[in-house]
Amino acid sequence: MGYAVIFQPLGLRGTVEEGTTLLDAARKLGVDIESPCGAARVCGKCKVRIEEGHFQKFGIESKISNLSPILEEEREKLEASEINSGYRLACCASVKGDVLVFVPEESRAGRQIILETGRERKTPVDPVVKNYYIEMSPAVLGDQRDDFMRIKSALAQKFDLQEVNALDFPVATTLSEIIRRADWKLTVSVWNDKEIIKVFPGLVENYWGAAVDIGSTTVAAYLCNLRTGETVAKKSMMNPQIVYGEDILSRITYSMTNKEGLEKMSKAIIDGINSLLEALAEEVGLVPEDIVDLVLVGNTVMHHIMLSIDPKYVGLAPFVPAFKCGIDFKARDLGIRINRGAYVHWLPLEAGFVGADNVAVLIAEEPYRQDEVVLIIDIGTNGEIVLGNREKLFSTSCATGPALEGAQIKFGMRAAVGAIEGVMIDTQTKNPRIKIIGQEDWFKEGDEPLARGICGSGIIDACAEMFKAGIIDSTGRFNRRIANPRIRRGAEGKMEYVLCFAGETAIGKDITVTQGDIRAIQLAKSALYCGAEYLMEKYGLAKPDRIVFAGAFGSYINKESAMVIGMVPDCDLEKIQAVGNAAGDGAKLALLNSKKRKEAGEIARKVNFVETAAEPDFQFRFAEAMAFPHKRHKFFSIRHIIGDV
Amino acid sequence: MGYAVIFQPLGLRGTVEEGTTLLDAARKLGVDIESPCGAARVCGKCKVRIEEGHFQKFGIESKISNLSPILEEEREKLEASEINSGYRLACCASVKGDVLVFVPEESRAGRQIILETGRERKTPVDPVVKNYYIEMSPAVLGDQRDDFMRIKSALAQKFDLQEVNALDFPVATTLSEIIRRADWKLTVSVWNDKEIIKVFPGLVENYWGAAVDIGSTTVAAYLCNLRTGETVAKKSMMNPQIVYGEDILSRITYSMTNKEGLEKMSKAIIDGINSLLEALAEEVGLVPEDIVDLVLVGNTVMHHIMLSIDPKYVGLAPFVPAFKCGIDFKARDLGIRINRGAYVHWLPLEAGFVGADNVAVLIAEEPYRQDEVVLIIDIGTNGEIVLGNREKLFSTSCATGPALEGAQIKFGMRAAVGAIEGVMIDTQTKNPRIKIIGQEDWFKEGDEPLARGICGSGIIDACAEMFKAGIIDSTGRFNRRIANPRIRRGAEGKMEYVLCFAGETAIGKDITVTQGDIRAIQLAKSALYCGAEYLMEKYGLAKPDRIVFAGAFGSYINKESAMVIGMVPDCDLEKIQAVGNAAGDGAKLALLNSKKRKEAGEIARKVNFVETAAEPDFQFRFAEAMAFPHKRHKFFSIRHIIGDV
Repeated sequence: MGYAVIFQPLGLRGTVEEGTTLLDAARKLGVDIESPCGAARVCGKCKVRIEEGHFQKFGIESKISNLSPILEEEREKLEASEINSGYRLACCASVKGDVLVFVPEESRAGRQIILETGRERKTPVDPVVKNYYIEMSPAVLGDQRDDFMRIKSALAQKFDLQEVNALDFPVATTLSEIIRRADWKLTVSVWNDKEIIKVFPGLVENYWGAAVDIGSTTVAAYLCNLRTGETVAKKSMMNPQIVYGEDILSRITYSMTNKEGLEKMSKAIIDGINSLLEALAEEVGLVPEDIVDLVLVGNTVMHHIMLSIDPKYVGLAPFVPAFKCGIDFKARDLGIRINRGAYVHWLPLEAGFVGADNVAVLIAEEPYRQDEVVLIIDIGTNGEIVLGNREKLFSTSCATGPALEGAQIKFGMRAAVGAIEGVMIDTQTKNPRIKIIGQEDWFKEGDEPLARGICGSGIIDACAEMFKAGIIDSTGRFNRRIANPRIRRGAEGKMEYVLCFAGETAIGKDITVTQGDIRAIQLAKSALYCGAEYLMEKYGLAKPDRIVFAGAFGSYINKESAMVIGMVPDCDLEKIQAVGNAAGDGAKLALLNSKKRKEAGEIARKVNFVETAAEPDFQFRFAEAMAFPHKRHKFFSIRHIIGDV
Repeated sequence: MGYAVIFQPLGLRGTVEEGTTLLDAARKLGVDIESPCGAARVCGKCKVRIEEGHFQKFGIESKISNLSPILEEEREKLEASEINSGYRLACCASVKGDVLVFVPEESRAGRQIILETGRERKTPVDPVVKNYYIEMSPAVLGDQRDDFMRIKSALAQKFDLQEVNALDFPVATTLSEIIRRADWKLTVSVWNDKEIIKVFPGLVENYWGAAVDIGSTTVAAYLCNLRTGETVAKKSMMNPQIVYGEDILSRITYSMTNKEGLEKMSKAIIDGINSLLEALAEEVGLVPEDIVDLVLVGNTVMHHIMLSIDPKYVGLAPFVPAFKCGIDFKARDLGIRINRGAYVHWLPLEAGFVGADNVAVLIAEEPYRQDEVVLIIDIGTNGEIVLGNREKLFSTSCATGPALEGAQIKFGMRAAVGAIEGVMIDTQTKNPRIKIIGQEDWFKEGDEPLARGICGSGIIDACAEMFKAGIIDSTGRFNRRIANPRIRRGAEGKMEYVLCFAGETAIGKDITVTQGDIRAIQLAKSALYCGAEYLMEKYGLAKPDRIVFAGAFGSYINKESAMVIGMVPDCDLEKIQAVGNAAGDGAKLALLNSKKRKEAGEIARKVNFVETAAEPDFQFRFAEAMAFPHKRHKFFSIRHIIGDV
């Protein structure tokens, strides 16, 4: 005899036999209800509210309820007020008539987690390491199955896991003791549906994983609850390898010229990651041993050094990494101090200079799921760009140098308090207005003199505004005919523009933009522009539909200025967007959803890497792209910004 | 256009196209010719002799040879005398006419290796770890595949290995350096066709594996060449855990009563194995790092302790091990110092007291391939017996105690120089004759007095002969009515029989067999007999077709005596056989042939373990089986030995 069951808010309905639990009914009808204990009636997570068919109200049990009576286990797990409001545990209540059931948000499994670093990114929570709660019958003389077999049978029977054939060594040594201490009730952490990497006595609902984005300069780490998908803590630190070189090329050089260079740099980053993970765990009252999975991303050189692989051949033509595929190593083999059974997963690399961080950006942005052709620019010490959509994808790396980050600029500094991050110049008076990090509004006379230097977005603004004001021409040269105290010959006879006179700074010196600074920015933007242009050519495209700036730095760039100096190809301004640390988001997605790891592998292989330095006309184009704005730039979009030039 | 090619001595023949190399022709026709370098023309192992169709003799090349001309590579690899005798390299010579080719023994691949420990055991050489030689084209700007991908492609292309997706961490760190140093020519060690565990520059033909049989008392280790299957060295040592207890029960007790007992015993055996492997390697001019695979066998308690698993639950009802399946752990995780990428494979266990050593015996003896029902008895401190054939298999374990090995016997000693290993007693005079280890012939008056004690085979002989001479009766009691100086009351008033008067010993004391010794042997033989009887009952069998004694001790037992005291069930005497260290042989087979590992897993699951202690009439039967010979013994076979009793 069947009864109608309807689950809200999804509105899924169907007929089930009398005696079916609501949990089984939900599964049958395709409604995902959380049940970490696997219907063992111990976790209390499968709460549902009966909307119709449940006649128990105000503490009085009706004789004609369409559900089985409330069990002792439900009284333990539900508040009295919940019981009064019609709540039941789906694993306990079975159907005796038609019912309408509401599944509250917190009871829904297959929840989507939303990362909010730069933009909303949704993913179902389906991590590579999963916890399973099982209850087994104890071993007796009539049933002498070994402990591992007993666990395997329980996992197969209850969760349909048929391939759990491996047992990590540290687990093997303690299994028998834990299983008996816990009275044959265990929570088992299974990696990739294959290997038992940890067993806990009793029911353990929450478990944790971490994602780390190893940048040449900054290392960002996230701690996530693998059950809920929630990011519970995040921390970042300077990459401790900085002392061995500012950028990847100088680190490669360090490893080639110092006997134990590789070893030192490798140890530095491993120690750094360990201390970050320890701090993350501590912040939420955990220990690193609680972390059962770790995803790493970073550029190819960071990847190699972290894995104690000599990065030499990545730096020498033909720029070939030891391996590009996504890979799993035991954390303990790498010296990473998390759970003893845990793996570390490195996302795949795309090519010598397009690393796992870029793959992470791709799985976060998913250009391969879109019709629009998007140009993704990740500006770091090395610029990585990708162009494409669901049809094809091209990537390249551009040797931008560190100028765009404020380095190699006379008064350059990192984006910290005191950095000039925005510049506007009056085209008539040639006087600037400046925006300083640490001050809410644009600087005006009488304000506290905070300025200490210029950061990346500030120098890009300055270049664009100086060009618009005619202080420099399209070749980047200063116009010496302008008589203005701010435009002058500097210390070594080179032209410079005074952005801030000494009295208005915190350093007691004039802050200037020099001819050399302009040249450095020209080199950097030309590298980016050329890279994008080659990719557009390969794709057969005149103009991307969208441009995305990934990376923390991208968030601060004034997109009009970027367009004016010809750093990016022509694109509708409103179609240019900054998405924050997409690499970090991608790493988290790969931590929380096993399908994203698979996707990463497929995409890394699918992207066509373009080696721009191998193109015959590279030198010519690079020189040409130095101009403000780019000569071949079609000006469609910037005409309204700068008028006719 | 096709030509006929015939390969001798197999006589396989067929037609191949002009230009086919002899190696390809051989593969096509199903003839296995060795080619460790995979036809790269560098190893010189595919030598064949042309019997007909090769007209080059005495250094003069005929113009009408039916093979392509001799290549430079052949002149390098072959002796001038070989060339003159018609030898060619099969990878170089291609067909231009009909040829008759002889493949010498040393060039034949898929060779069978014969172990000669106890009996001949043949197995094809097909180890789990295999070496593959590959040559790759160097990375260039037009082909920027990463190093691992390049190796994978070469393995797939040349050896059809499609699933080599894992890279061991230590290999990953050194891969790029080695591949370039070796000019893109590598030998790759692949585990299970899945994981690269080692790379060598250039061609490496020979590689090594080890097999270790961990007995409670003795540890035996073998070093094998994995290419040829040859055992190149063997060594044994006392199990260093002996200081913590003589037998498995006392070691379990030690681990339960001493805080770091498990740790100490585990370390002792790991250190012991390491020193054995080091000695093995040193003996043949190798280092432990050269060993790329290791197979371990041993009883369940040795298994657990070696793996740092508390053996407590193996010793407590229901006697359940942590896991029984065959398992692979990285040697480095276990502290075993062989190649850094190598795995240690433990053969599966059958049950709590029937361990991996018994499984090894099974894959060596292969009762599951036979029609005859065989009873396999492995006598150690614990007796393990198996009964069955291809239809079904039963096993049990018998608590024989150490008496059969000479322990718990008043003058008992191990089988070493001075041990009485054979006894005959004149039924009239009741005078004994003895055979002593270290002396060629049976002892006679005037010989050097060497006797120091009695070993296992000696005490079994003594019991049988004392029974036949009427010195003891079928209950094991001394016949006090015999007046003979050798039959007397001993120190504590207990009866004893003097085997050797003080003057004829090296210890200056009478060596006697006491009433207590007789009782100890009765308990031990009764345990074995009862076990065998239960298995026969389960099988539905009155008498096994054959009895096999496995284990070193089994080789010394006088089978007539064993029959007389009722240690084994009735069986034709000529069908009782000792096969030496079959467990060690089984371990080697699992090292040399991956199929034997698979077989071990299947057999371990297939064998029905019988828990004799759980049988309701166990106590009764055990008491009954104490008699000399066993009461239910049908005497068919022993009547002619002892006459009517």
